Amino acid sequence: MTALDAVGPYEVLARLPGADVKFVASTPGPKTTDVGLVLVADSGLEDVPRPDIIVVPGGPGTMPALAEAAAVEWLRQAHASSKWTTSVCTGSLLLRAAGILQGKRATSHWILRDMLREFGAKPVAERVVIEGDVITAAGVSAGIDMALMLAAIEAGDAEARTLQLVIEYDPDPPFDSGSLGKADAAPSVARPSTWSPAVATWR
Amino acid sequence: MTALDAVGPYEVLARLPGADVKFVASTPGPKTTDVGLVLVADSGLEDVPRPDIIVVPGGPGTMPALAEAAAVEWLRQAHASSKWTTSVCTGSLLLRAAGILQGKRATSHWILRDMLREFGAKPVAERVVIEGDVITAAGVSAGIDMALMLAAIEAGDAEARTLQLVIEYDPDPPFDSGSLGKADAAPSVARPSTWSPAVATWR
Repeated sequence: MTALDAVGPYEVLARLPGADVKFVASTPGPKTTDVGLVLVADSGLEDVPRPDIIVVPGGPGTMPALAEAAAVEWLRQAHASSKWTTSVCTGSLLLRAAGILQGKRATSHWILRDMLREFGAKPVAERVVIEGDVITAAGVSAGIDMALMLAAIEAGDAEARTLQLVIEYDPDPPFDSGSLGKADAAPSVARPSTWSPAVATWR
Repeated sequence: MTALDAVGPYEVLARLPGADVKFVASTPGPKTTDVGLVLVADSGLEDVPRPDIIVVPGGPGTMPALAEAAAVEWLRQAHASSKWTTSVCTGSLLLRAAGILQGKRATSHWILRDMLREFGAKPVAERVVIEGDVITAAGVSAGIDMALMLAAIEAGDAEARTLQLVIEYDPDPPFDSGSLGKADAAPSVARPSTWSPAVATWR
């Protein structure tokens, strides 16, 4: 997984009043993320059968995770009782695999977004997509925006505004290249033969 | 520390061509961050004596860290040979303690920014402040903007734009409350007696 996919929403949702956050994996323990940082999963799937809010991060590890039948089945069952089931980045492909996006509009990291079309989801180029009790966010950093929107729904605008101030989220990126439609770099990024090593980790 | 302080810049800088990222702590091993996530520090201070780029994250743990003489001394010595010494959030207080901000303009999380004034730094309400080979960023999420600026300086605008696209950083926060001057919540947030539990972790 990509660490920021999880850490962005976590910094918002874990600060909600009464939040009890678990990091869940097929097997608990240290997990090496895509470019090296090790995060610790504190819980196994069986330890958290009925979460209120599910956040599924993405990253290059999404593809092998799609083949983990027990994890996909856990997601399907957990969604049946969750209040919200959400994803960041390619995490939405796992939601799709669990049958959660059937007939729904959804987003993902731009690089794999079209894969949502398989099995009946409707990929859209939006940053955060809310469909009933399912929320999908675009790539990596979009989870921060998603979590603030969810915080507002769950705890009210005043709390969400305070959390935005706590993480001092007053973004001021140096370029306007954060989505595929805007990026000057897009033509070269989109052609695999010229992908930089950084982008190649996403293939 | 606050996990996002480190993970934001990491997701950008670790993807620079040739990057070799180490997570350094006084003692290596698992570290519980302020609201629960455990990150693993892979290196001790002595393992990384001459980093090219230093990123010092902040969080409530900054205050006890100021008393860790060995860590502050490591920072002072590492800065002597670093190309860039940077901080996110209250990490700038550690730079200040190491004598790195003497006479310099600098920023920090808004909640402790005025503390930079001690020992001769000049606190400013800016998101990213570059002074020579020292860069300080405002609270938590500001490290993402800082890292993209540094990526542009080190690897060129094209690479930085590509990295911004890789992390799909096209921010769209639900509120305009991410800095103290903008937040509707600011009057209540700023008075400790009415701070929410979320904000209270910062005291």
